[in-house]
Amino acid sequence: MKRIAGFFLLISLLVPIALADEGMWTFDNPPLRQWKERYNFEPSQEWLDKIRLASPKVSGASGAFVSPNGLVATNHHVAAGYIARLSTKERDLMKTGFYARTQAEELKIPDAEVSILASYLDVTKRVLDAAKSGTNDAEIAAKRRAEIAVIEKDCNATSGLSCQVISFYSGGEYWLYRFKRYNDVRLVMAPEEQTAFFGGDYDNFTFPRHDLDFTFLRAYENGKPANTPNYLKWSAAGAKDGEFILVSGYPGSTARLLTVAQLAYQRDVGNPLQKKVWELRRKALEDYAKLGAEQARQAQQGMRSFANSLKRLDGQQSGLLNPRNFSRKEAEEKDLRDRLKAKPELEREYAPAWNNIAGAYAKLPAMADRLAFSNLAASRIATIAQQIVTYHLEMAKPEAQRLPEYREGRVAATRNSILSPTPVYKEMDEAALRSWLEEARKALGVNDPFIKAAVGDAEPSEVVGRAFRETKLDDVNVRRAMLDGPADAVLNSTEPMITLAKRAEPVIRELRAWNEVNILNVETANGTKIAQARFAVYGKTMPPDANSQLRILYGKVLGYDEDTTLVPYKTTFFGLYDRALSFNERHPFDLPKRVMDARTKLDLATPLNFVYTADTIGGNSGSPVINRNGEIVGLNFDSNLQKLSNRYWYIDEGEGSRAVGVHSAGIIESLRKIYDADELVKELTGK
Amino acid sequence: MKRIAGFFLLISLLVPIALADEGMWTFDNPPLRQWKERYNFEPSQEWLDKIRLASPKVSGASGAFVSPNGLVATNHHVAAGYIARLSTKERDLMKTGFYARTQAEELKIPDAEVSILASYLDVTKRVLDAAKSGTNDAEIAAKRRAEIAVIEKDCNATSGLSCQVISFYSGGEYWLYRFKRYNDVRLVMAPEEQTAFFGGDYDNFTFPRHDLDFTFLRAYENGKPANTPNYLKWSAAGAKDGEFILVSGYPGSTARLLTVAQLAYQRDVGNPLQKKVWELRRKALEDYAKLGAEQARQAQQGMRSFANSLKRLDGQQSGLLNPRNFSRKEAEEKDLRDRLKAKPELEREYAPAWNNIAGAYAKLPAMADRLAFSNLAASRIATIAQQIVTYHLEMAKPEAQRLPEYREGRVAATRNSILSPTPVYKEMDEAALRSWLEEARKALGVNDPFIKAAVGDAEPSEVVGRAFRETKLDDVNVRRAMLDGPADAVLNSTEPMITLAKRAEPVIRELRAWNEVNILNVETANGTKIAQARFAVYGKTMPPDANSQLRILYGKVLGYDEDTTLVPYKTTFFGLYDRALSFNERHPFDLPKRVMDARTKLDLATPLNFVYTADTIGGNSGSPVINRNGEIVGLNFDSNLQKLSNRYWYIDEGEGSRAVGVHSAGIIESLRKIYDADELVKELTGK
Repeated sequence: MKRIAGFFLLISLLVPIALADEGMWTFDNPPLRQWKERYNFEPSQEWLDKIRLASPKVSGASGAFVSPNGLVATNHHVAAGYIARLSTKERDLMKTGFYARTQAEELKIPDAEVSILASYLDVTKRVLDAAKSGTNDAEIAAKRRAEIAVIEKDCNATSGLSCQVISFYSGGEYWLYRFKRYNDVRLVMAPEEQTAFFGGDYDNFTFPRHDLDFTFLRAYENGKPANTPNYLKWSAAGAKDGEFILVSGYPGSTARLLTVAQLAYQRDVGNPLQKKVWELRRKALEDYAKLGAEQARQAQQGMRSFANSLKRLDGQQSGLLNPRNFSRKEAEEKDLRDRLKAKPELEREYAPAWNNIAGAYAKLPAMADRLAFSNLAASRIATIAQQIVTYHLEMAKPEAQRLPEYREGRVAATRNSILSPTPVYKEMDEAALRSWLEEARKALGVNDPFIKAAVGDAEPSEVVGRAFRETKLDDVNVRRAMLDGPADAVLNSTEPMITLAKRAEPVIRELRAWNEVNILNVETANGTKIAQARFAVYGKTMPPDANSQLRILYGKVLGYDEDTTLVPYKTTFFGLYDRALSFNERHPFDLPKRVMDARTKLDLATPLNFVYTADTIGGNSGSPVINRNGEIVGLNFDSNLQKLSNRYWYIDEGEGSRAVGVHSAGIIESLRKIYDADELVKELTGK
Repeated sequence: MKRIAGFFLLISLLVPIALADEGMWTFDNPPLRQWKERYNFEPSQEWLDKIRLASPKVSGASGAFVSPNGLVATNHHVAAGYIARLSTKERDLMKTGFYARTQAEELKIPDAEVSILASYLDVTKRVLDAAKSGTNDAEIAAKRRAEIAVIEKDCNATSGLSCQVISFYSGGEYWLYRFKRYNDVRLVMAPEEQTAFFGGDYDNFTFPRHDLDFTFLRAYENGKPANTPNYLKWSAAGAKDGEFILVSGYPGSTARLLTVAQLAYQRDVGNPLQKKVWELRRKALEDYAKLGAEQARQAQQGMRSFANSLKRLDGQQSGLLNPRNFSRKEAEEKDLRDRLKAKPELEREYAPAWNNIAGAYAKLPAMADRLAFSNLAASRIATIAQQIVTYHLEMAKPEAQRLPEYREGRVAATRNSILSPTPVYKEMDEAALRSWLEEARKALGVNDPFIKAAVGDAEPSEVVGRAFRETKLDDVNVRRAMLDGPADAVLNSTEPMITLAKRAEPVIRELRAWNEVNILNVETANGTKIAQARFAVYGKTMPPDANSQLRILYGKVLGYDEDTTLVPYKTTFFGLYDRALSFNERHPFDLPKRVMDARTKLDLATPLNFVYTADTIGGNSGSPVINRNGEIVGLNFDSNLQKLSNRYWYIDEGEGSRAVGVHSAGIIESLRKIYDADELVKELTGK
């Protein structure tokens, strides 16, 4: 299915700059030349600023302000954690959907946040200069971190915004990002999960697709809908075939600037191990879900998340396993290193960086199992216990010596996470931790330091059973008391969940330190060198790897060919009902009754989903797809299989790599005819 | 996309009998045990006889009698040659479709035939005994042919039917087949080609699929609708998910019992050369079609036929190029030969057969280009000229020495073909022959005997231009005069098309003789040995290779998985309109206006196409898909890509290999709501 465009290899070797519609660009460096040359598009700075300010981060992914009154459009799967948080056994909003006809009916979501990138400033010189006197990787890293802490502290004190220094190009650039955060977020409208995620994991990463994967939230300030003058107008007509589009949002992570040594590790050790870990954790949830309907409901989001991650990982890994892709990366690296050789002063400065990273990675395989299995992440309560223990250990130190997440400016977020009112399902949490420790023991052996610390000679079921029987950490007030009470009370506690965390904590801390010293610091120091080498040889022609920060992407609405036939640029409501009925509505191809019934009312020719060439990746879920007038023509929600290995390299449109969006016209049609949400339609379209 | 089921390899090595739903079975040897064990299906002999007698061969492919009054259901693409034959520039039935509301309006098709297998008789012993005294392959072959001629002649004289001795298992068995032929065939109803072939070559061999690929004909006898008491009832409900189904029809050709040497030749020489030839012939038609709308109309069927053949050949070849498939064949051959070694008397008798065939095939590559290019088949008129010349040369000989198609019992069909009133498009025919001779000259060189004979030192355009300017062979009466006039008049003719044919004829005849002596006779003699070796070692556990004779197949209605998602067992009319609209009705995803308009009248949930596991192949087009009650639940019309290499081996259902049919309910719904063919619906369903 995935064809390799031969010409692509050639071009990339000759001109190592962004190709076709490649790139997740920062707003400080948009690809103005490409836009102008390819699409005759020349936005003003005001236009770009408006898009940026209308593009909130939502639940780790993306969204858009779509009215002046704080209305946010995002994907249902992005908001699913929020919707699940508002659901109970008796009122399962995931199953029923939700619509607040008036603002008074909007449901406040515990522990939710949306934020926008209010402004940014290049602080590269300041951070790098501060570390110039460092004599080794660890010292350099420490000096950078210290300077970053100062910058963030100053900014937090003066700007009234939430400030963070972000690293780009593996430390080749540092930018101070100032965020405006909205912490009162309410649910306005959500379709049923079955409608949003029609086709389930089967149709995930697939096109043609038929998902109404959207949800509307509203940001509030001071108890009132937030004033959001920078919002995007909703296009009732929506995306057209061949049309130029832009996508703004928060792509999570790419690894396109990694060295061959780093990629080979991912391929040979990292990805297979990650797969094993996720499969084990999914299996624990699946076993739990089999116990009954309520257990299945509790486990649903976790299972879906692992299924999604695993399907994506398989796609990424199959890209890495393709020798042609890999040899292209080798050729790219060789080209850069050959060009350095031509300039002795560059060669001296930068050439050792690759070997340094390769040397560090040579140590990783022997440690990989320990790093992967020595944690309590399978259980939310155990994680909270561990965070409380670490909190007290860290807060006792001078600030500069603390782990980053316990320093000023970040510790509040850590506390919020510990104190989050998101409900904990104790039985599920216990099952997950028991299974995890059993599997970790199989993987690491009974003499492993983490296993000995966590369970000693006992059975995991025994240790975990006791901890869950006695713990009160599912109660937020108990957590708060422990967090705000004296350190000794925690550090001397005999509560078995806390004692489990206390025994595991030193091993986890030690491994974290090992990884930081042996891998992360080496990567940072030498990654910076490689980034600088790239700048020196090619200029700043490529965007930095994605890092969950705001980017702008672009492309065009375009179908593709697959196997020997054509895949169209869009689907329609006709296709939704065909797919449901062609499976005789067998799950996951079933639809809620009101959706099935609506087939006689809907204009079935209305576009439902569509595809385009923008270089999106996970985190871009919920991103507005924007036309050249700045109107929303769709909401990004997925990629197709052909695109999955774009974590490691851009995949040309000729290979059928596409992003998948919900069409803006399909959203309006469903709001009107399925959900009777005329008030919401009026707020979106004025009609 | 195509997965290889690991377990399949294992099973096939251990138990070399028909697997899963494998096999195109002759009616004398239906797989009763498999039907009973797997599907609890035990048909009576009467039931099987009725299916046989209700399954006419139609235009080289398949169909079904569906009323007691000679009504035949088949595919539109099977009848397309007939429909095109009834079409003119002014009345293009391919474009408009056709419906005869009364029998008086039914259109008689020139040169059409449907036939049924009225009865059959095993004559293996008689044919093989007659050849026992042969001392070499050629003599054996000649003696077999002579005995076959006697059997056919006797039968034709006494039975009142059309008799033919058919070889099975490469000559391992011979059966006398007696056919009842209907030569007055009329067109009753045809949809527009665009509706029958919606999605064009893109969607060919693809599923999900949305083609109303059906047509109704009627067989007449003595100017009246034929009396066909053996007909199949039409199921208005049609195929259900998971249901057991049977398929009867005329699969054209498989090569599953070939030796590894024969397969390797196909893979390395035969298929690549076939591809080249078809591409060249298609290119000539494409170039002609570019000259204008009428030229495009004339070339349409030919281009479609080559596109279809090429897509299928690509699928077959990609199966052969898969080393795992090929090593399975090697292992199967090795298993049989190893078992022979265990029995000296079998070893002595049969072991040389494989080497004999391999030896013959070793001579083929050097001759392959000559065999492929030394013919006039690109032009219908030149072919007719050559047949007329050969006719007179052959009819001058004693019957036993003639080429088979000029002997009694077969010469009538040869004459019918020469005298067929099917219109000839002279300009297209000329363009095709000119291009063919130019390409043949490139492939064979100017000194090749065929090239020297056909064009000498002149330019092909010159020779062909003169021949087409002067020839009158497009006139059937001219042909008849030449055929029935004195031989000398033809053999001394200076008409340039006839002289071209006379020059080419000896070369074509010589190559045909070379192939017969060096390849075909060796294959027959040794293929018979291998078949007998198989019978001796395994028994008659496998059906013979397909050979365009009536077979019965079976399986179940079943979706499959492809890439990482599920493909449903059926499509609906919802899907048809989705696919048209999702391409904005761009050709070939456009629909005639009356079909688009019908979307408000149709029950869109009605099944349109569906898939099932039966082991069909080209030639099964138009086959009735039958439920256990003997009712038609669909009409077979295609296979998916996963199935294409089933020419060389059965492909297990786990690999997603499926046949594709038009659903019987979809046909009724379209007849009622799109084509207003209520009279036809009443004849089919009684309602």
